[in-house]
Amino acid sequence: MSDRAHAAAFIREGSSFVIATHLNPDGDALGSALALAAGIRQTGRSALVYDRDGVIPGLEFLPGSGEILSSLAGIETAGMDLIVLDCNKPERAGVLGTPFRRTLVIDHHVTEAEFGDVRWIDPAEPATGLMVHRLLADLGVAVTRDIATDIYSAIAVDTGTFRYPCTTGETVAAAAALIDAGADPSWVADRLYNNWSPARFRLLVEFLGSADIRGAVCVTTITLEMFARTCTTHADTENFVNFPLMVEDIRLSAAMRETAPGSWRVSLRSKGDCDVSGVAERFGGGGHRNASGCTIEGTEAKALLAAAIDELALRPLAP
Amino acid sequence: MSDRAHAAAFIREGSSFVIATHLNPDGDALGSALALAAGIRQTGRSALVYDRDGVIPGLEFLPGSGEILSSLAGIETAGMDLIVLDCNKPERAGVLGTPFRRTLVIDHHVTEAEFGDVRWIDPAEPATGLMVHRLLADLGVAVTRDIATDIYSAIAVDTGTFRYPCTTGETVAAAAALIDAGADPSWVADRLYNNWSPARFRLLVEFLGSADIRGAVCVTTITLEMFARTCTTHADTENFVNFPLMVEDIRLSAAMRETAPGSWRVSLRSKGDCDVSGVAERFGGGGHRNASGCTIEGTEAKALLAAAIDELALRPLAP
Repeated sequence: MSDRAHAAAFIREGSSFVIATHLNPDGDALGSALALAAGIRQTGRSALVYDRDGVIPGLEFLPGSGEILSSLAGIETAGMDLIVLDCNKPERAGVLGTPFRRTLVIDHHVTEAEFGDVRWIDPAEPATGLMVHRLLADLGVAVTRDIATDIYSAIAVDTGTFRYPCTTGETVAAAAALIDAGADPSWVADRLYNNWSPARFRLLVEFLGSADIRGAVCVTTITLEMFARTCTTHADTENFVNFPLMVEDIRLSAAMRETAPGSWRVSLRSKGDCDVSGVAERFGGGGHRNASGCTIEGTEAKALLAAAIDELALRPLAP
Repeated sequence: MSDRAHAAAFIREGSSFVIATHLNPDGDALGSALALAAGIRQTGRSALVYDRDGVIPGLEFLPGSGEILSSLAGIETAGMDLIVLDCNKPERAGVLGTPFRRTLVIDHHVTEAEFGDVRWIDPAEPATGLMVHRLLADLGVAVTRDIATDIYSAIAVDTGTFRYPCTTGETVAAAAALIDAGADPSWVADRLYNNWSPARFRLLVEFLGSADIRGAVCVTTITLEMFARTCTTHADTENFVNFPLMVEDIRLSAAMRETAPGSWRVSLRSKGDCDVSGVAERFGGGGHRNASGCTIEGTEAKALLAAAIDELALRPLAP
């Protein structure tokens, strides 16, 4: 029996579920969880969605988002089954120490954790939403307009609406079926991409204005003073680091955000074989080849960062 | 017989074709034309692609773009059949006065022109590329990787890679089939969206910095001096006007570009039922509800524009 069939059996064998996803949940996490909960309920079982951080701003449009619990206090979880979605560690799902009858993990992230009685983990999948889509089909669930919208949004977030390399023909075919089932692609795109506050827009202007482009590298800087002047917070900077990569010649974008006087949170993004993981590790951070992050302290932070980028990310590319 | 069947018959009855598309061609125009030419050749017929403006910068990645002719001089067109794609007037296709045996027009734009012996015009279609995709299927053409890439790119351009309201389940299902046939969605997205020059990026920074946001309206300004300082041209401003619409509260974005001292080309974009066609008409321009353009002269241009927006686009929305 495949891992996916085991996952379907896990649900058929249960009656009452808590669906938990990761802290600071994104659209794939919440959309997948809400769709799975609605689908499970359609089969006559009960399902709660739990995320300690609740719905993050901008994702309230997901159908069912109003039902998300940010605490399990008072709920008799010991007799319930847990489904962890889009992550695979109990601490990241905010359920460490909470008792459950059995646990199912569904995720598309690489893992070394051994958490879960039943595990369906497939890093080849572009989004957890796609896995939930298939699981609901296995369970004979009818894809309602709300379920379609939640899953479509989940897939859209994790594929950059079909612009990221993880996008496959199967992904896009699933999206087409979800649109036929009632998901509105332009409505979802508007909610995901055109929901900025004027303050965030002003911060973007300052962020882009700070761009220091030298050859293939762009370093941007947001100071505490810029946050204060534009009435924004760190949450408003999400995805900013990707903007400079629209320039064809820029292969590495580093965004420095001042989190306390003289303390800089650095996000690094790169294209292709330009590897930013080593730069982050140099400063005690981590990540992957094309996305990493770290913290650097002191007035020399930018110079230290530039030197590390030159040594660890650019020089290895030289012929 | 449907218009589409007539179009297929037109091609079956011919042997030698010129495929012309509109001046200043976009990705839907060129991708459709190149795919149709490759498909017609596969059936043993000959086909040339002609556009007086050639390949515009940024679209050289389209497979076959090197074959596009910017002149028909020396070609005996009188014995050939003409196919006009993505437009429906001979002057806009740059073929006014050029003799052809017969003419077929395939377009998804509204038209009042009567040009063409055979006409397949369907404003409900999101892209001409989708129409070409169906026509090639009717002709029994195998969708090669190059054809798939050209058609996928055409559809991606005209739907904002599936973010615009014109996107349907059928559109996205066609895209899935094209990916299965070899189109690479992230490669195409990189070519379409991440191909900026550093100079264009600097102009964007200045453009966004010029944003004058008042309630639901954002007016931006690019002066001749800004073009000069960033070493850019008007072509670099394409799509700039859409950026301010990412702010949820902004319903109307007006971008003013100085084309000669004191002469302003104005692009207007709006969301939903905010209608910008009347504003453009006030100054002798034109367009549709959500996209229009005009030219305004003089030092009072911005004030005149703001007054027209208030009167013609905002006031009609008031309760």
